[in-house]
Amino acid sequence: MVKVGVVGYGVIGQRLADGVDLQEDMELVGVADVAPTLAVRALKEKGMPYRFYNSLPENQKLLEEAGIPVSGTLEDLIKSVDIVLDATSAGVGARNKELYQKHNVKAVFQGGEKNSVADVFFHGYANYEQGVNKQFLKLTSCNTTGLIRAVDCLDRQVGIEKVAITIIRRVADPGDYHRGLTNALQMDKAPSHQAIDLMTIMPQVQATGILVHTPVTHGHIITVVATPKRKINKEAVLQYFRAHPRIRVVRLEDGFLGNASLFRYARDLGNPRGDMYEIAVWEEAIVNSGDDIMFAINIPQEAVVIPESIDAIRAALGMQADMESGVGLTNKHLGMGRWQKGVDHGL
Amino acid sequence: MVKVGVVGYGVIGQRLADGVDLQEDMELVGVADVAPTLAVRALKEKGMPYRFYNSLPENQKLLEEAGIPVSGTLEDLIKSVDIVLDATSAGVGARNKELYQKHNVKAVFQGGEKNSVADVFFHGYANYEQGVNKQFLKLTSCNTTGLIRAVDCLDRQVGIEKVAITIIRRVADPGDYHRGLTNALQMDKAPSHQAIDLMTIMPQVQATGILVHTPVTHGHIITVVATPKRKINKEAVLQYFRAHPRIRVVRLEDGFLGNASLFRYARDLGNPRGDMYEIAVWEEAIVNSGDDIMFAINIPQEAVVIPESIDAIRAALGMQADMESGVGLTNKHLGMGRWQKGVDHGL
Amino acid sequence: MVKVGVVGYGVIGQRLADGVDLQEDMELVGVADVAPTLAVRALKEKGMPYRFYNSLPENQKLLEEAGIPVSGTLEDLIKSVDIVLDATSAGVGARNKELYQKHNVKAVFQGGEKNSVADVFFHGYANYEQGVNKQFLKLTSCNTTGLIRAVDCLDRQVGIEKVAITIIRRVADPGDYHRGLTNALQMDKAPSHQAIDLMTIMPQVQATGILVHTPVTHGHIITVVATPKRKINKEAVLQYFRAHPRIRVVRLEDGFLGNASLFRYARDLGNPRGDMYEIAVWEEAIVNSGDDIMFAINIPQEAVVIPESIDAIRAALGMQADMESGVGLTNKHLGMGRWQKGVDHGL
Amino acid sequence: MVKVGVVGYGVIGQRLADGVDLQEDMELVGVADVAPTLAVRALKEKGMPYRFYNSLPENQKLLEEAGIPVSGTLEDLIKSVDIVLDATSAGVGARNKELYQKHNVKAVFQGGEKNSVADVFFHGYANYEQGVNKQFLKLTSCNTTGLIRAVDCLDRQVGIEKVAITIIRRVADPGDYHRGLTNALQMDKAPSHQAIDLMTIMPQVQATGILVHTPVTHGHIITVVATPKRKINKEAVLQYFRAHPRIRVVRLEDGFLGNASLFRYARDLGNPRGDMYEIAVWEEAIVNSGDDIMFAINIPQEAVVIPESIDAIRAALGMQADMESGVGLTNKHLGMGRWQKGVDHGL
Repeated sequence: MVKVGVVGYGVIGQRLADGVDLQEDMELVGVADVAPTLAVRALKEKGMPYRFYNSLPENQKLLEEAGIPVSGTLEDLIKSVDIVLDATSAGVGARNKELYQKHNVKAVFQGGEKNSVADVFFHGYANYEQGVNKQFLKLTSCNTTGLIRAVDCLDRQVGIEKVAITIIRRVADPGDYHRGLTNALQMDKAPSHQAIDLMTIMPQVQATGILVHTPVTHGHIITVVATPKRKINKEAVLQYFRAHPRIRVVRLEDGFLGNASLFRYARDLGNPRGDMYEIAVWEEAIVNSGDDIMFAINIPQEAVVIPESIDAIRAALGMQADMESGVGLTNKHLGMGRWQKGVDHGL
Repeated sequence: MVKVGVVGYGVIGQRLADGVDLQEDMELVGVADVAPTLAVRALKEKGMPYRFYNSLPENQKLLEEAGIPVSGTLEDLIKSVDIVLDATSAGVGARNKELYQKHNVKAVFQGGEKNSVADVFFHGYANYEQGVNKQFLKLTSCNTTGLIRAVDCLDRQVGIEKVAITIIRRVADPGDYHRGLTNALQMDKAPSHQAIDLMTIMPQVQATGILVHTPVTHGHIITVVATPKRKINKEAVLQYFRAHPRIRVVRLEDGFLGNASLFRYARDLGNPRGDMYEIAVWEEAIVNSGDDIMFAINIPQEAVVIPESIDAIRAALGMQADMESGVGLTNKHLGMGRWQKGVDHGL
Repeated sequence: MVKVGVVGYGVIGQRLADGVDLQEDMELVGVADVAPTLAVRALKEKGMPYRFYNSLPENQKLLEEAGIPVSGTLEDLIKSVDIVLDATSAGVGARNKELYQKHNVKAVFQGGEKNSVADVFFHGYANYEQGVNKQFLKLTSCNTTGLIRAVDCLDRQVGIEKVAITIIRRVADPGDYHRGLTNALQMDKAPSHQAIDLMTIMPQVQATGILVHTPVTHGHIITVVATPKRKINKEAVLQYFRAHPRIRVVRLEDGFLGNASLFRYARDLGNPRGDMYEIAVWEEAIVNSGDDIMFAINIPQEAVVIPESIDAIRAALGMQADMESGVGLTNKHLGMGRWQKGVDHGL
Repeated sequence: MVKVGVVGYGVIGQRLADGVDLQEDMELVGVADVAPTLAVRALKEKGMPYRFYNSLPENQKLLEEAGIPVSGTLEDLIKSVDIVLDATSAGVGARNKELYQKHNVKAVFQGGEKNSVADVFFHGYANYEQGVNKQFLKLTSCNTTGLIRAVDCLDRQVGIEKVAITIIRRVADPGDYHRGLTNALQMDKAPSHQAIDLMTIMPQVQATGILVHTPVTHGHIITVVATPKRKINKEAVLQYFRAHPRIRVVRLEDGFLGNASLFRYARDLGNPRGDMYEIAVWEEAIVNSGDDIMFAINIPQEAVVIPESIDAIRAALGMQADMESGVGLTNKHLGMGRWQKGVDHGL
């Protein structure tokens, strides 16, 4: 049993803790944060299934007043684990890294940190082997994680020469008040960082893209225009996506009308926090553009990075040396791929 | 064990099924609907924890193609139960009533039906005894259910002479595409039906109100200006609300900044579907207006009617003859009131 | 002709300039701002109907590169005018005040500044005479300005003892990206500042209120529960509102379904920038709550303060010594009240 | 002076009337609609600059009660004109066509009608000559009109082989309550009709695309991945777009952050109804994808089709026999192209 700590207990940190807790070969030692946030209050209200550590000594009194049982300091947590999943706000991870180095603990950072914080910019499927036995890994952001799943899936089958993506980005998470957009579509400078990040992880693919922020909270949608090295038709694309345990092929006809349908569906499945780990691809929105393939992906931004983050633990600690074994175990423990009709993922 | 069926498996029907399933003295026989909706597909994907009955014979083939195991017809379900919770679309319940009468089964209708469909227009706290042993009960709508909880709570303590309410209504549920509003506040003709419904259930109170639709999905907010019969201060109001198992007193200071905070919090509690049964009242938004008391309520529209619907089963079947016993058992099985600091609800 | 300068050329500043330009007894000398914002670029594209002054010397090059003709510095503008309308960001007005004092120029500040910046906290209808010949006036904010119009209107007729208001606040203006809210209703600590400000201006009225932010851009809606000193019925309320040149009584039946209808209507009237100076009251949303009157107001937040700001010029410069004359001339030049059926406003 | 009537006085009809009124060689005889809508009430409030005709005899009393001066029936209008711009709801135009045929009047239909209603599916720039002297023309929809402007612009310069588009569609207009979407992105079946329509008008170009509805009201954004026949760089693309009188090149750096910036800017320009006829292209969002060019267009959906509709009058009536003369006069009278820095459009 490897010992894992989660530092930063926000939207991502909570879900990392959930995900680690589902792995039979990992022990979640505890989570750390700086204040009695709603997330921490919810942890308490449900009876402290995990231990909580305080990252900010001056807030000890605040935490006590809120009735939060505190098991120690951030450093106490770090000393008790083999690896940390750092899901703190952008920039804080870089500061925490000194502590991880001091205690010779491995760490996986999230997409908000700079690439330079880590030895490897990591994606479970696209470059698992590069992360094996490294000390510091950085995950791709939610959009890039989901995008690479789909592009890597096709690239392994037919080779992808280039992609041009349009990211229709959800601007905030459900429950966010510190950021938002009201009745506006906001443009970003192109090319978007997701295209650049994809090229860093998959240098064999040329990528560019335009990102537009939209005032919704339930998932990004990305359209991809992909130029394959070998001609493929829609049926082949569907077959490849259907066989991927982290991709869910859905249909408008069945009632999956947009990003909010997938959000609702995950809640109705009874998934904890209503989360969905898979990206979705709409069957009726796959079209040919000459020899290019165009399709649309749904990215459930709150939970999509969890599987690849678990993969990162497996790689960094050398628990599994190759991708198939590593992601396979993650998938098994997260129950991924069970929904695919007529597909045997060996689960 | 009384036997319960749920007819109509949409947003409310799904949650009624969840709620009945939690009652130790009730058996959920199954649910019925007319098509392989996303809700029904989710039921199948999670392994059919309940049996499914088909309400629309001509859709049998469609259901089979979707792989939904069908246990029988609507009439088969009705014949197997003591009581039906009817959560079909407005107007369908009135037609279903003939079947319930034919099979001499009791039924609880939701707020969308006309009052005339039922013997009693029912609210668990405000008029439980009137529902005892009746055949047909109709629940109040989500806004009215939550509003009456709060008004009844104060009325029992100090007497309420009149209320003037402003309903800031969420216009759609998460995952709805068939209704919506974009960048607009929409006015309704006053007085709102919720005020009129409150007076039907609580004739001792005079009520009026204005309803404004807003483009959000995570909970209605109602402001209430209540004229008490005896003068009360804010502390007393807080004390009464805190002691109520279906009311959660929250604080802006703790991070409960609006309706979306409560939606997020319920998800983070790990509640199934991310649901919350309680209304919330903000501590920092209780003010005096002369001798009147003004406060704001959060209504989680997807799940708020579940407790009172369970109460309705208890009343209609005469399982408990008085309100305290009836709502008490509902509360116990739904785990309501556990969150209140320092309050012993006898659970 | 009194000479007027507008400092701060944002959403409010642009409209103040428009409003001053319509007054036959005022000359708009020019406007000042700190950078080539979109508002300033639009001024240039339409051919510089007003002169532009640069408030930030270090941005002179930026302005020149954008091709904006600059007529001088902020101080140049101040030296050329009798009075400044200061519509800078909150807090900047207090700093600008030193310049106004240095050059012995009068100034009208907007609602974002602290009350202490001014000699009088001013509303054209409610306390015009207090502003006469004063040097520094501060306007009420958009919500308070519109709210006071309605409350003052009734108070003059029957006396108002107290009001309890619910402010359903639009969270951003059309075209704002720096602030926003997505799929959430956000609560504020009660009582809202608008209620407190109303009491400052109208000490004879007791006021409290709750404010809820909503993700829309086209106008606030306020519901008011008003306790009159003499009993009045709905017809009388309607008659008083209809006779007020700055209040527009509208009907759901005619198609005025919410705040966005009024926004659209003002555009379709051909009003510059699609602006509306009047608040609106919905005929079908006036109800009695016992002896209280409850009604709903629409506040077009971009332009509603313009008439009262023009009134402030008239008061501060002693152009008209009494309210009737002052607001009457403002109304005449802005064309207010022309829409009222069968009402002679003497225009 | 050719005589023009506008049938259907909604969002588009109002703007068609405005646009015709600006043409020195056209006379706007009047507009027709079926009821005292807000648009018709606004027409009356501004003093009936156009005559109004009643298309629905049974609503005559309703119109009179609303005080709308009625100049006759729909047929009266048709008999007085050379050509009708039909902007009625989808499907009504096909019925009106019988009247146009009966009175031997020409007509231009909007994009909601089926193609079969007209002799030519028309775009001012892409196929002007095909519309010359035809009786019935149908305009492209708002998205297609703007899209073709940009694609035609590049096609004339370097030849365009194929395009793959992503339409980020605004779901309603400001002031709409009958349609809307709340906190959701909604997918359409691909390929989108806009891609198919583009191929109908420009058969030399292969097109496909995916459309996603978004909950905003201020303009669609389309991303285009275009495969040119000759390699071009970003500078050339910019030069071609800048030289087009109906395309506005804008910069994030200048403050044009998204669709709402363009909406605000048009209002601040003082354009009637705050309208903008031009599409916009963001300078910072033009990128290369291999030899393909990717860019983003803003489509102001309320007014974008007006210029091409005026072009259609010119073509149908043979007022100008070639595209350059036809669109040139439309542009001159609408003042298009004046904003481009350093570009001489011969105006």
